[in-house]
Amino acid sequence: MSSINLKRLSEELGLSISSVSKALRDSYEISAETKKRVMEMAEKLNYQPNPFASSLRRKKSLTVAVVIPEIANNYFVLAINGIQTVAQQKGYHVLTYLTHENAKDQESTIKHLQGGRVDGVLISLCSDTSTGEQLSELQNAGFPVVFFDRVPDAPGCPTVTTDDFDGGFKATEQLITSGCKKIAYLRVSGYLSTTVNRMNGYLAALQKYGIPQDPKMIVECSNDDDANQELIKKILKMRGRPDGILSSVEKLAVSMYYACTEINLKIPKDLKVISFSCLRTASLLSPSLSTITPPAFEIGKEAASLLFRMIEKKVYGNRVDKIVLNSSLIQRNSSR
Amino acid sequence: MSSINLKRLSEELGLSISSVSKALRDSYEISAETKKRVMEMAEKLNYQPNPFASSLRRKKSLTVAVVIPEIANNYFVLAINGIQTVAQQKGYHVLTYLTHENAKDQESTIKHLQGGRVDGVLISLCSDTSTGEQLSELQNAGFPVVFFDRVPDAPGCPTVTTDDFDGGFKATEQLITSGCKKIAYLRVSGYLSTTVNRMNGYLAALQKYGIPQDPKMIVECSNDDDANQELIKKILKMRGRPDGILSSVEKLAVSMYYACTEINLKIPKDLKVISFSCLRTASLLSPSLSTITPPAFEIGKEAASLLFRMIEKKVYGNRVDKIVLNSSLIQRNSSR
Repeated sequence: MSSINLKRLSEELGLSISSVSKALRDSYEISAETKKRVMEMAEKLNYQPNPFASSLRRKKSLTVAVVIPEIANNYFVLAINGIQTVAQQKGYHVLTYLTHENAKDQESTIKHLQGGRVDGVLISLCSDTSTGEQLSELQNAGFPVVFFDRVPDAPGCPTVTTDDFDGGFKATEQLITSGCKKIAYLRVSGYLSTTVNRMNGYLAALQKYGIPQDPKMIVECSNDDDANQELIKKILKMRGRPDGILSSVEKLAVSMYYACTEINLKIPKDLKVISFSCLRTASLLSPSLSTITPPAFEIGKEAASLLFRMIEKKVYGNRVDKIVLNSSLIQRNSSR
Repeated sequence: MSSINLKRLSEELGLSISSVSKALRDSYEISAETKKRVMEMAEKLNYQPNPFASSLRRKKSLTVAVVIPEIANNYFVLAINGIQTVAQQKGYHVLTYLTHENAKDQESTIKHLQGGRVDGVLISLCSDTSTGEQLSELQNAGFPVVFFDRVPDAPGCPTVTTDDFDGGFKATEQLITSGCKKIAYLRVSGYLSTTVNRMNGYLAALQKYGIPQDPKMIVECSNDDDANQELIKKILKMRGRPDGILSSVEKLAVSMYYACTEINLKIPKDLKVISFSCLRTASLLSPSLSTITPPAFEIGKEAASLLFRMIEKKVYGNRVDKIVLNSSLIQRNSSR
């Protein structure tokens, strides 16, 4: 018996080779009825595709994936704009996935990407990422990966970040020179690179100005806005409360504004405030919010450019790029 | 020659059946080296899997997809929280995809989902969705689809929406009773269900109070924040400028606040403002922003509950659910 190929199968069915091929791959372009007909005929004629060819061959998808932890954060809006600017120039398509600050979601997104339908991945880690295992799996899967903003602490990972230490230092120094003596640091839980570096900058500034570290001034917040607001209220009502606050992420600054409204503390008279933030409404708030603003759009552009250099194999050998950009301190009324 | 099955192949390789099966499926759990070994042995022994079994059988993925158009919108943050609450109870995992208000992104996301790796889809359309074709493809792909917030105008689609007509009517009525005589409506481009219904509510309220429609008062904005701010400034500087503004989405309200700051118009003295919005900082703005607030969390919950009724086949026959929830008018200082 002569071997059955796609051509023979398509002749028997009166369909094009392309349609038969698509039906066998369960493509959405083919109706369920046609798929059934094709599969029945394939079985009847004992057509055997070569399943090894397709998995050994890896075609360009002209798609890159962006994996981000949360959407309630203007930073990622701007970073994605930067990424898309570069991707469009390269004729690539961007697919964005959310991990909702959840390690399990991140894990299944990564598994999913390993299926190989993208040419590269840009990823910013979720806050409860505990190990680097998944991430090295991702790198081992054979396509380029660039981490941005929230990055693993590993020498082999290409990263694009902001100088978070410097941001934390400058913000704290500004609060000190505005007269603050007891500065609280609002951090999110977990071991994010951003949180750790920002806090180290805060601690270094305290040290430089001879202000003793106080563990009560380091406030560990969660992803629950209401709980954070209650926690911040408690800190602001305690004896020896802070007179300055550095918030490591913008959503905590918003919770703090609400906490101050509730207990009738006036910013900046009773409490001076600076937050890491790309919040679009920062200068419209009452009072306007002083911010340390990372160059999110530029970070997205740099990260995408690096990824494309890797995709196009313009990065050779053992070279690992670690690109660091500076953030700006924008002083507004909340810290005057 | 006896036929080669997975068991025989695994014996030859000294690997478990499960590992061999995973290698043949190109799973990330198997190293590249092992995959190569497995494939070479499979070829050598002429192992032929049955490719028809797997595509005819559809396994439960215990995953649902959420497809949303943008991330700079607190509505979707809340709706996703509602969706996740229900999905968690059902033991399901949620994967979120962004379409960036771009029909091409939406198209490729939908194509991708048709690969069949989810049990159901919740989708809110992007603003430049022009045809319903892709969407009926999605429905024909054989899994349940529920549309929420921005929905197609088609009888066969299950939808969960807010009463946008009522919201537009109530907001406009509030501006009129606060003394506004020339009310502009800021709309986004395209033919989104939400935009159209909100505008119809606005027009109905004008009619009820005998205020003539003025085409110059309907301002079509884009997705470019800077361009919108310029456009709004132009409207606010023209002779016979509006004394009230209804903004159909929150980002336009923010552009408008910036426009007013630039040209020194005082809200609410010179201009009263209400916006459809779930903005977390609405009451912290200067002045606080009056909003029509859709019950985003509830919409997410209802949409997910409906999807699970469809997945569990508790929705029979030709029944199509169209669930409509009410939004609330929250009056703050911007419209007093």
